Parts: sequence; structure tokens; C-alpha cells
Amino acid sequence: MSSPFRHAALIGKYQAQGIRPMLEGIAAFLVRQGLEVSVDRDTALNIDWHDYGALTPAEIGAHCDIAVVVGGDGTMLGIARELAPRNIPLVGINEGRLGFITDVRSTDWAEALGPIVQGDYEEERRALIEGDVWRDSRSIFHGLAVNDVVVGRGATTSMVELRVDVGGEFVANMRADGLIIASPTGSTAYALSAGGPILHPSIGGWVLLPIAPHTLSNRPIVLPDSAEVGITIVTARDTSASFDMHSLTSLLPGDQVRVRRSPVAMRFLHPRGWSYYATLRRKLRWYEGVV
Amino acid sequence: MSSPFRHAALIGKYQAQGIRPMLEGIAAFLVRQGLEVSVDRDTALNIDWHDYGALTPAEIGAHCDIAVVVGGDGTMLGIARELAPRNIPLVGINEGRLGFITDVRSTDWAEALGPIVQGDYEEERRALIEGDVWRDSRSIFHGLAVNDVVVGRGATTSMVELRVDVGGEFVANMRADGLIIASPTGSTAYALSAGGPILHPSIGGWVLLPIAPHTLSNRPIVLPDSAEVGITIVTARDTSASFDMHSLTSLLPGDQVRVRRSPVAMRFLHPRGWSYYATLRRKLRWYEGVV
Amino acid sequence: MSSPFRHAALIGKYQAQGIRPMLEGIAAFLVRQGLEVSVDRDTALNIDWHDYGALTPAEIGAHCDIAVVVGGDGTMLGIARELAPRNIPLVGINEGRLGFITDVRSTDWAEALGPIVQGDYEEERRALIEGDVWRDSRSIFHGLAVNDVVVGRGATTSMVELRVDVGGEFVANMRADGLIIASPTGSTAYALSAGGPILHPSIGGWVLLPIAPHTLSNRPIVLPDSAEVGITIVTARDTSASFDMHSLTSLLPGDQVRVRRSPVAMRFLHPRGWSYYATLRRKLRWYEGVV
Amino acid sequence: MSSPFRHAALIGKYQAQGIRPMLEGIAAFLVRQGLEVSVDRDTALNIDWHDYGALTPAEIGAHCDIAVVVGGDGTMLGIARELAPRNIPLVGINEGRLGFITDVRSTDWAEALGPIVQGDYEEERRALIEGDVWRDSRSIFHGLAVNDVVVGRGATTSMVELRVDVGGEFVANMRADGLIIASPTGSTAYALSAGGPILHPSIGGWVLLPIAPHTLSNRPIVLPDSAEVGITIVTARDTSASFDMHSLTSLLPGDQVRVRRSPVAMRFLHPRGWSYYATLRRKLRWYEGVV
Repeated sequence: MSSPFRHAALIGKYQAQGIRPMLEGIAAFLVRQGLEVSVDRDTALNIDWHDYGALTPAEIGAHCDIAVVVGGDGTMLGIARELAPRNIPLVGINEGRLGFITDVRSTDWAEALGPIVQGDYEEERRALIEGDVWRDSRSIFHGLAVNDVVVGRGATTSMVELRVDVGGEFVANMRADGLIIASPTGSTAYALSAGGPILHPSIGGWVLLPIAPHTLSNRPIVLPDSAEVGITIVTARDTSASFDMHSLTSLLPGDQVRVRRSPVAMRFLHPRGWSYYATLRRKLRWYEGVV
Repeated sequence: MSSPFRHAALIGKYQAQGIRPMLEGIAAFLVRQGLEVSVDRDTALNIDWHDYGALTPAEIGAHCDIAVVVGGDGTMLGIARELAPRNIPLVGINEGRLGFITDVRSTDWAEALGPIVQGDYEEERRALIEGDVWRDSRSIFHGLAVNDVVVGRGATTSMVELRVDVGGEFVANMRADGLIIASPTGSTAYALSAGGPILHPSIGGWVLLPIAPHTLSNRPIVLPDSAEVGITIVTARDTSASFDMHSLTSLLPGDQVRVRRSPVAMRFLHPRGWSYYATLRRKLRWYEGVV
Repeated sequence: MSSPFRHAALIGKYQAQGIRPMLEGIAAFLVRQGLEVSVDRDTALNIDWHDYGALTPAEIGAHCDIAVVVGGDGTMLGIARELAPRNIPLVGINEGRLGFITDVRSTDWAEALGPIVQGDYEEERRALIEGDVWRDSRSIFHGLAVNDVVVGRGATTSMVELRVDVGGEFVANMRADGLIIASPTGSTAYALSAGGPILHPSIGGWVLLPIAPHTLSNRPIVLPDSAEVGITIVTARDTSASFDMHSLTSLLPGDQVRVRRSPVAMRFLHPRGWSYYATLRRKLRWYEGVV
Repeated sequence: MSSPFRHAALIGKYQAQGIRPMLEGIAAFLVRQGLEVSVDRDTALNIDWHDYGALTPAEIGAHCDIAVVVGGDGTMLGIARELAPRNIPLVGINEGRLGFITDVRSTDWAEALGPIVQGDYEEERRALIEGDVWRDSRSIFHGLAVNDVVVGRGATTSMVELRVDVGGEFVANMRADGLIIASPTGSTAYALSAGGPILHPSIGGWVLLPIAPHTLSNRPIVLPDSAEVGITIVTARDTSASFDMHSLTSLLPGDQVRVRRSPVAMRFLHPRGWSYYATLRRKLRWYEGVV
């Protein structure tokens, strides 16, 4: 049986100790499976490894048809955001603690990766949020978020006042430390800390929830991802909008953050038998610790 | 312009004071709009009104193409569950407090109903949950729920222990007073009291959440409605399963409640300009009462 | 050094397997420490053990000056409620899972018990709730609760409507599945499941919180234990009041549950180095499972 | 009947429109009641009002025996913090929205103030939090807080890691946006936004709760105010400690915030019939908006 994949890219969390021998092992394994192997340029440079061709993310997007990422969820989500527009599937091997996305354990990678590169896997697509910040009728910032878009106050002020609409229809005014719009992927990240529900990755919606709201009668809402969500800054000092970790600071009253479902999605390949719910239980200790 | 509807059924919350003159007014209005009018048999009998033909819900399903319901959400959801399999659209006129579904005010019904019966409306479809209780490989109960399916303890015991799966995949074990699976419609009913998020009616999923869980690490999850959800009774005394208000008591260990999205949906017709979010704000005081 | 205690009572969770050899070992140990030993009559009868004198709880209260309880929190709280009026200190040895109160592990009992009976311990006092149900100006039920008083609905109705006052001053009306008034001890029991805060045992107050309230704007409140709390049944069908597990069912509109701090308290003796916070972390996994 | 008070200080929220005529009316009223009247110097200067003697807060503390504050809770809490060490009782007249502390309405002040200055009032004492930030065994910051002490991250980092102890006993490690220790007064301020319970002002404890914690198993705890609470910075970038609004930024790993109950308390005088619970309901819409 021959692999449905032709050319693999290898991306590593190069700061992690002991990452190079692991990447070498994976590269040799992929070559034995009949794939051409290239290495992410930043990874190659940082660990001083030049046995394979080095490619920029854009070049990976143009030439490769599978990407193997060794690291944590942060590494994975960074590269996933870059490769999403190219529709390249990703396999995540976690280095360190179990990740939500990097679900292959570093001790088991050979067993997991073999069937995957031979075409035997479970594919999962995950939605991305894209959006803009508008001021005076023009976009002054464009972003793409894997996890969430957060409009929030800085340390020098006590709250923001925001006005939310969906497709132009008024939803609510909110006074809070900030407001989170999270994708299903982001529902187990910052939004979970702020008290939001978990959204299964196949749900076509976003969680909208405030951080430390100035009202008792708030409650998270799951909005459909079919309409654009708008957040208008009503009053603000020291307020910023962040798409994942990329921020635009110094928002002004009247500025508007508008987000929508990106036409591109992330594609993750998991070993057969992979379970989203098992990851929730193991990583979050969800429903564990019964009293 | 002629109405796209031919034959309207009128259903009223017959216990409500002053309901008869209102139903008479609506019936006369509908006749003037060119529609044939029939009256729900229970309604007609209870208010002793025999000016129009009386039909059972099954006959309404067979003969009418629009139903006008005067009452609260309870009245509406009862008839909606019965008419859903016939695909008949419903218009809700609230008698008493504003409802989520019965969103036309009793004082404004003429203005709202005119355009609707002329074909100028916003249509909203809402999913129903259907399911069975299985014992020893056979169904001992079949139900259809507009709001929720609740598996819970009675007053004579202190908790239930349940095992949840989605499509046969293990999700979690839960020890709690009970467990709720709520549709988007039900997300603003009992599930909201128990701490669940609000799901916009167009979300293709259910809220799964425990009532008074015996663990700190619980969190509501929104499950896709594409797979069947199973709840297995692990240990139980005095435990019941309720589909909306219809209950099967005396569940036994090993019994399994299995629910899925019903192939039929409810169809509601709203006046143009109707806003789901405005109803949330008005009815729940959602995000009101800013401190 | 001689023991400050003279006569110990032994109480065991007699249903637990292997409890008899453990009780025999503890009795022999206490005798060697110079104490007279008696055994709770129910315990003695149920495990058919007649080597020591058997006493009823009332007799234990009259004759003993320390009680050693082997079992879980349930066993402990049962006997603690009975012995509290006699001011007898209790030591809890857990059999099975770690308890909040039964904090000496069954494998370590000898090391822990030795210093305690020699007078080297940390004493902790815990408040009890006492109260009555009033109907037509007379008490129809009197109860004492270690954990909580719960006024709640049964399975055949959908909510209760209650009116809460403190010392006659109106607090709030609540529509909910029920209402909990929990002592600090009870704050880590049912009230925790229902979403309440944890109260350190030395806090002079009760948690008041609803179960599944019909409003978004609820929030638990910690009330001072210096005033009487009253709960008036406004509307009710199938409603009961429970003091811990002892219930009065069939409450009627107008009935009033009035609770106050009991003049007696429970006294627990812990080994030196005992930590309330460590118990929270171990038993509840409080703040564990960091994401 | 003569007033138990001799010399009143008047403090106003001088930025508020129309404050001067109101202060003039109150001053004349107090004089007619037989009191000497002085005006807070900042207030006098800002509204250019020189009919009465002007005093600094320190001078008010030395010479006056009652203070009447016209403004919002912010104005009140600012002056209360300054006057607390002098044990001077305060009366709050709200200008604008109802306050928790400034509970006399500006339209009713004469009716309310008359009996109070004649000695007919309800007195309420409220605890203050005081504390220090320690670095390398010396205090680098000392603060007094009416509402809360918050240790939190700035906008340039994603979390703080903290270690909490009570009286030197380890409580828990927390990874979160921040951590709040709130007095009963502060339990209805920022801590409420972050999900904390309400503490009646007479409760002898603090709420400890995290902001957006990185764990599912957190839950607020009410700690006794009899022991010192310590928060050690484990890892931090861009972290600050705030006592109400006064902040020390740039905390370093190893820094320790230690707080305790201040020996001084605030004294508020309320009109007879004043109700803490009524304020909760009116200001927070607590338990209102029944579904």
C-alpha cells in the first residue's frame, strides 16, 4: 500500500530540549514510508539541522501535502493558522503535556504515524475566526484566530463598555473587563477560564461571553457562525482587540471589531480510535474528582 | 394580494380568562383575510364555542396549513409537538407574560397577523429531540421533546450515577441530582436554571449539563445533534426520565435513554422585525441591571 | 503523662467489611492508653461484638468524654448530631475514601490516635443549624442539621416559590427547584454541588443559595448566623423541608421553616498538622488539574 | 432633644452638577439642628464655596464627630478610608444612581438626616483590609482597602501563577488572570463580577477567588479574617497588586502580598428601616427578573 501523501513538512518546537533527535527519527521514518521530507526553516535554523530541505511556511503551503508538528498546542496553532489557507492536513505530536490538538504522544509516535501516512486516520476540520477592526469606515487591522477574539481593557482602566450585534441586529450592551468570542477550538482555552461552555469542534457556532461582567444577569450564548458578529466600542480607555495573541491596542470609541467564519478551516489528522471526549477528561480532568 | 394560506386552525389556552372574545376576534379577522377557520376541539369544548368547525390535533394536521395559537409557551409547545410531524407553521400570540415563542402581543395581534397571513413573515425552524428508553434490548418508552430530556432522581434518594456516550463513544460518568439534554429551545428553559449557556435556535446541537453535580470539574458541553446521545443508568433508586413533562419513572440500573434529533422540526412564523435577542433581553433581563 | 480522657466510646460503620478487627485493635489500644472503653450499642449488635460494655448514644453522652468514630462522614455526622448537646469531642477515622471530618486514615490510626488521647491535638468546633417548621402558629417539626436545611420540590411538580427573611427583614422571593441553607460544614456537601462557595469552618454564617433558580440574577449570599432565617412557602405542591436527611413532606402554602444557630456545637479533634485546606485539595481536587 | 453630634463635616462629589445648592441646603439644615459645620477643603475649593470653615481630611478627623457625604460610593469609600482611623461615623447621600453605602436618596435627605443627627439611626460597621507587599524581607508598599486587594496580570502577559497561604498554612496554587481578596463591602463590587458570593457586611471573613482561572475545579472560598492571607508571586511578568485602586506594578517572583483585617473599621449611619437586602435587590436586581 502506498501513501496518499507525497511530501511531508516537519515543524518542531525548537526551544524544547531533546527535540532534534525526535525530529530526526520522524524524518527517517517518513522517508522509509516513501515520502519526501522538508523541514520548516525556523526549526532547521534554530536546531542547526540541515539534512533536509528547509522551507518557509509559504513554501510548505505550496509544496507539501501533509505537515507533522512536534510541540504543544501553541506550536500547532501557530503553524495551523499559517497553513489553513493551503488546506494542508496536520498531525500533532505532543512534546511535554498532552495537548488538545497535539494528541499523539511523543512516546507512541511511530505507531500512530505509520497508519496515518498510509491513509488510515480520522480527519477533523476546525473553523477559524477572521475579522477586522474598523475605524471611520476603513479596516485598520485584519486578523485570523484559531482560538478567540478578545476585546478587553488594559491594567490602567476598570472596564470597557461594548455593544454587540449579530448581522447588524442588536444583541446586548456589556460593561465588563472584556468580551470573548471563541471558536469551538477556543472554547477549551481562555473562554473556559472565563466560565464558558465547551463546544464540540463540529458545532457551527461561537461562544460569546464577557469577562467579569458588571451585571448579574449575564449568561454565555452560542451564536451561529453564519452571521457576522460586531463589537462596537462605546466607551474605552486603554482597550485592545486580540486575535489569538495578536493585538491592536488603543481602540477608540466608535471602533468596531467585526468577525466571521473564515472560508478556510484547519484539517487535523488523528489516529483511529482518537477521542475528543477522552482528551477533555485527561487534559481538563473534566468530570473527574467525584466527591 | 391573496394569502398563501388556505385553512387556519385556532388553538387557545382555554383556562385563561377573556380568551373567548379574543379568539372570536381573531377568527373573524382570518375569515375576512379569506381563510377557512377551524377551532381545536378541546378549545372549542372548553369555552363552549361552536361557530366554527372543531378539529382534533390530528385533523388539524391533515387539513390546515397554518395554526394560530393564543396562550403561553406551554400551550404553544404542547401543540407544536403534536403538529411538528405535519410541517404546519405556527404563529404564537401571547396571553399574559411575553413568551419566547408566543412573541406576538395580545394587544397587537391584528397588526402582526395581517402581514403574516399575507405571506410576509420571518420563518424560524426549531429542532426537536426524540428518543427512547431501552431495557433488555427493547424500547419501553418513546418520547418527543421540544425543550429537554431530563434524567433525574426523585425526592427519596440523594443522587443518580449516569454514564454518557455520544454515538457509542464514552463521554463521562456523572454523579448528580440529574442530567439535562436541552435543545436550543430548551436552553432558555430548565437548562438555563441549572446553569447552562443559551443556544441560538439555529445551532445544530444540544446542551448537556448536570444538575447539582458531585464534582467541581464539570462544565456544560454543546454536543452536535448529528450523533445519538446515550445515558446509561449506572446506579439508581427512584430515578426517572422526562421528555419535556412526560416521564417514565422507576428506571433500573442498565436502562438506557437514547436521544437524537427528530427528523421533523417546528416551524414558527414571526412578524418582520422580530428579534430573538430582544426576547432574551426582555424576558430574561439578559445583560440588564448593570451595576 | 496521663490522658485527659477517661472513658472512650467507639462507634463503627458496621456495614463496612473488615470493620470488626479494626475496632478491636482500636479498643485494645485505648485500653492500653488507660481509658475505659464502651461500644455504641448498634455497632456492637450488628457486628456481634460483646467484649466491651454497650451504650446507647444517650448513655455515651452521659458517661463518655471522647468518642472515636470509624467510618465515613455520614457515620460521623450522624453520631455528631446526637452527641453535640453533650459537648463530647469526636475523632474520625475514615474507612474507605478520605472524609472531610473523618480525616485520620485507617492505615495510620495508631500514630494519630496516640497523641490525641494524650491531649496533643487540634480542636475544631463546628456550628449546627437547628430549626422548626411552623404551621398555624405552632411548630410541627423540629430538626438539627450538621450540613444543611433544604426546602425543595418533589418529582411531581416543577418548582417551589419561597419568600426568605432574615430576622423578619425581607430578603428575596425565589422560584426554584429548591433552596439550601448550609453550614460551613455543609458548604462542601450539597451546597457545593449546587454552586455555592466554600465557607471555612470558623466563619459565623450560612450559605443561602437556590437550586436551579428561575432567574439569571441570583447569586449565593453568606448570611450571618446571628439572626434567624425564615423561609415561607408561597406556593407549593409536593414540597418538603429536610434537615440533613430528615424530611417533612407535604408542606403547605403559608408554612414557615425557621432556622438558627444551635447553642451546641460539634467538637472535632484532629492530629497536629491537620490542614483543612489540604483536605479540600485532596478530597475535592480543588484547584488541581491546571490546564 | 439635643443632637449627640457637635461638629459635622460636609464632603461632596464636587464634579457633579448641581451639587452646590444641595450642599448649601444640607449645611443650613445642620446648623439649624445645632451643629457646627465645616466643609472638606477640596470640596470647598472646587465649588468655590467659602461660607463655612474648610478642613483637610486630617483636620476633619481631629475636629468633627460626624461626616455627611454627598456623592456616589466612590466618593464615600475614598473619604471613609481616610476617616476610618478616627472612628468618625459617616452618612451617605447619593447623588445619581443608588449606592450600596450612599443609601439616602438626594430627594429625601431632609427626612433621613433629621432623625440621624438627633441620634436615631442604625449603625453598621464594616471591616477594612490592610496589607503590605514584601520583597526581600521588607515592605515595599503598604495599603488599606475598603473593597478588595487584587493581584493580577497586565495586558502584555497571559497569566500569573500565585501561591496562597493563610497564616502560613498552604492553601492552593493558582494560575489565572488574577486573584481577588474582597471584604464584605467588596463582595458586591469587582468580586461579584468575577463570580463571587455576596457576604453580608457582618460576616467576619474575606472572599478569595480567582479571575479566569486555568482550572475547572476552582470555587470561591470565604476565609476567616482572623488570620493573615499571603499571596506569593510564583511566576510573573507584568503583574501588579492593587489595594482598591492604588497599585504597585512590576511585581517580581518571590514578592509576597500579605493582608489582614485592619484594626480600624468604617462606621456608617443609616436611617431607621434601612435594609441591606433591599439595596441588593434594587441595585443589583438580585433575584429579580423571574422567568
